Amino acid sequence: MFNLVIHNDEEIKSELDRMLWENKEVVKEAQRGEEVFADNQGWLDTEEWADNKSIYRLEMLSKEIRENADVFVLIGVGGSNNGARSVISALQKEGTPEIIYAGNTLSPNALNKILKRLEGKSVYLNAIAKNFETLEPGASFRVFRKYMYEAYGDAAAKRIIVTGTKGSSLERLCEEKGYPFLDFPWNIGGCYTAITNVGLFPMAVAGVNIRELVDGAHNMQKRLHIPELENNIAFQYACLRNLFYQKGYRVEMLASFEPQLRWFYKWWIQLFAESEGKDNKGVFPVASEFSEDLHSVGQFIQDGSPIMFETFLEVLEQQDSLIVEQDALEDGFDYLEGKDFRDINKIAYKATVMAHSRKLPCITIEIGSLDEYHFGQMFYFFQFACYLSCKMMDVNAFDQPGVEAYKEWMFDSLGKR
Amino acid sequence: MFNLVIHNDEEIKSELDRMLWENKEVVKEAQRGEEVFADNQGWLDTEEWADNKSIYRLEMLSKEIRENADVFVLIGVGGSNNGARSVISALQKEGTPEIIYAGNTLSPNALNKILKRLEGKSVYLNAIAKNFETLEPGASFRVFRKYMYEAYGDAAAKRIIVTGTKGSSLERLCEEKGYPFLDFPWNIGGCYTAITNVGLFPMAVAGVNIRELVDGAHNMQKRLHIPELENNIAFQYACLRNLFYQKGYRVEMLASFEPQLRWFYKWWIQLFAESEGKDNKGVFPVASEFSEDLHSVGQFIQDGSPIMFETFLEVLEQQDSLIVEQDALEDGFDYLEGKDFRDINKIAYKATVMAHSRKLPCITIEIGSLDEYHFGQMFYFFQFACYLSCKMMDVNAFDQPGVEAYKEWMFDSLGKR
Repeated sequence: MFNLVIHNDEEIKSELDRMLWENKEVVKEAQRGEEVFADNQGWLDTEEWADNKSIYRLEMLSKEIRENADVFVLIGVGGSNNGARSVISALQKEGTPEIIYAGNTLSPNALNKILKRLEGKSVYLNAIAKNFETLEPGASFRVFRKYMYEAYGDAAAKRIIVTGTKGSSLERLCEEKGYPFLDFPWNIGGCYTAITNVGLFPMAVAGVNIRELVDGAHNMQKRLHIPELENNIAFQYACLRNLFYQKGYRVEMLASFEPQLRWFYKWWIQLFAESEGKDNKGVFPVASEFSEDLHSVGQFIQDGSPIMFETFLEVLEQQDSLIVEQDALEDGFDYLEGKDFRDINKIAYKATVMAHSRKLPCITIEIGSLDEYHFGQMFYFFQFACYLSCKMMDVNAFDQPGVEAYKEWMFDSLGKR
Repeated sequence: MFNLVIHNDEEIKSELDRMLWENKEVVKEAQRGEEVFADNQGWLDTEEWADNKSIYRLEMLSKEIRENADVFVLIGVGGSNNGARSVISALQKEGTPEIIYAGNTLSPNALNKILKRLEGKSVYLNAIAKNFETLEPGASFRVFRKYMYEAYGDAAAKRIIVTGTKGSSLERLCEEKGYPFLDFPWNIGGCYTAITNVGLFPMAVAGVNIRELVDGAHNMQKRLHIPELENNIAFQYACLRNLFYQKGYRVEMLASFEPQLRWFYKWWIQLFAESEGKDNKGVFPVASEFSEDLHSVGQFIQDGSPIMFETFLEVLEQQDSLIVEQDALEDGFDYLEGKDFRDINKIAYKATVMAHSRKLPCITIEIGSLDEYHFGQMFYFFQFACYLSCKMMDVNAFDQPGVEAYKEWMFDSLGKR
């Protein structure tokens, strides 16, 4: 189950119809794949990098690690981290290794804390980088490699798994040292790699059923590559974003009532900020954890500057249950007795949609349940929708010219040639 | 050490001067305190609710808990949670009880996970609520109270500490049950309570030196209540926000290179979103963890829609150190050898300011070091600045009319009379 619901009035629906009609060619182009983006569209067909054979290898390798590791250190930043982290934080199985994220900070305080957590543990490490020049993972890899050799001597080699591009200097280095090597797809940019070795391997170590996840992504792929465009929900979502953008809304708030989605927001924010935020264009992506954040940003959403529209991520079938029981204490909450938090949470969602949609454009993406299959669907859905949204905004979804400015000065100051 | 630095050109500085001049009366009014806000200005003088006697009581009570608890459950949401959490996540001392945050979610999945973590542990609980009608803490308090009585029988009572307003039904209930009771200031709204029992008690349980923190806040109070307005940094900050707002910027990005500040962002976001976001006005507060988020939102900040200005929080003296050592491997990072992450991180900050300030307004709030004293300074600084900023925008900093709409429908649906 994966639906898109528009909560506002009929006017928006008719404007959407017009927009869908006017942009039909955009989708057809995207479905075909574009020659000009050949270096960046390896994700369009999930079978290119998440075929049976690749998945099987990840399952075997991760099984070995699950059996031997207490801790699994993921060294990666941005796209080499957010996909795996969003799924692991929601779905990690009990009894699997603790996953620690490194390579995403330069803070000595944070790094020292991580080193301390490794003491006395059986550690495996996965360094992930497409272009192995990025500062944070590169510098961290040095620190943790040193730790591994001090702890395990030459036996460290088989505990260090590298995910890098084939033919790179990094691959040669792995051959020399005997590090297991996984392919980082040469034709996919960082934030589109969740459904490849980059995202799937750490997920598998955490006991996530990656076969189900790939299956969900593949199912969504089929659904978005049909010729009947009026039923294409990624196209609808991309059109809505552009419609709201044209009306002057510059911020999209992604929100759900399920705290398990906390790290998924980060993946989603990177995807849209990095793909769309260029040439002085783009909708700025932000996220909120409801109901908690209703007690902080809720006031602004309802009453503040009218700059944002809101996209709810709603999980239809909640697996968990907890009943509010009777209590002799007169605490004023008798009206909740016998109710399930699951239903109370759902009512809070409905009340929020009702209130917010009177002020700002609100849509909901409904997913059946929070499991591997639906994570796969969400990844593919948002990637394809983001690509369409960028095309409609006439920006290149796959480059990041805006991050060069600070890097240049930084590398100069650090004496890098 | 606590400074404000403007990174952009001279033009902004001269506009700021004009604005400071034009708004002198605003500060004078705020310094005096306003009769109309009598119910909401208990925070203006830190000595009103964080005097020696109160602090001493918190120190004694928290000492007992530190000695006996494995886990301390904080039941609170928004202002009853964010202040304590921001300090604890940065400065908790080793060997103190694990702090678990409940009362901020309706998710049965999240609540069941917390219940599981309590098994076999010695648990203390602090329920915090000004108005004990808020759904999340009220419902959670029921769940965890039940747990406590099942685990400890009547001895549960002395493990349940309630922070509520004097004279409320909650206080009577504590007397009846024998729960230790702490004052929630009747004349302070949620997001201004960090430097009162609300924030200080959980911090003390985590081994934080609350005396230092109050000292920092008090020092900042003295600094912001001087008659020489040209040196008043809270006034400068409030004027800059309003200046950028008038120029059309609708988003403020708070960013630092220190991951320890992660939860402080949430406190800051609530403060500004809730105080300022009303009457269709306000700058929307968002936050980023650099350098990590340079790999996600960095592209948008530099190149996307020109809707935001940026406020860096920079810690001048880093306590921690970690050297990048020599490595036989030709990994391309030789240029970092012998360098300290502390300095690399600082260079990343400088490079980012240099790059971003060419595109958007950038300011930095510099703090001496990340310790109790400076947290106290930050709390008071931002509270006072936010109050001034709201006055200049002509909104009431202390009400939240915008959260009533969803609550009304929700309480109706839940059958609350």
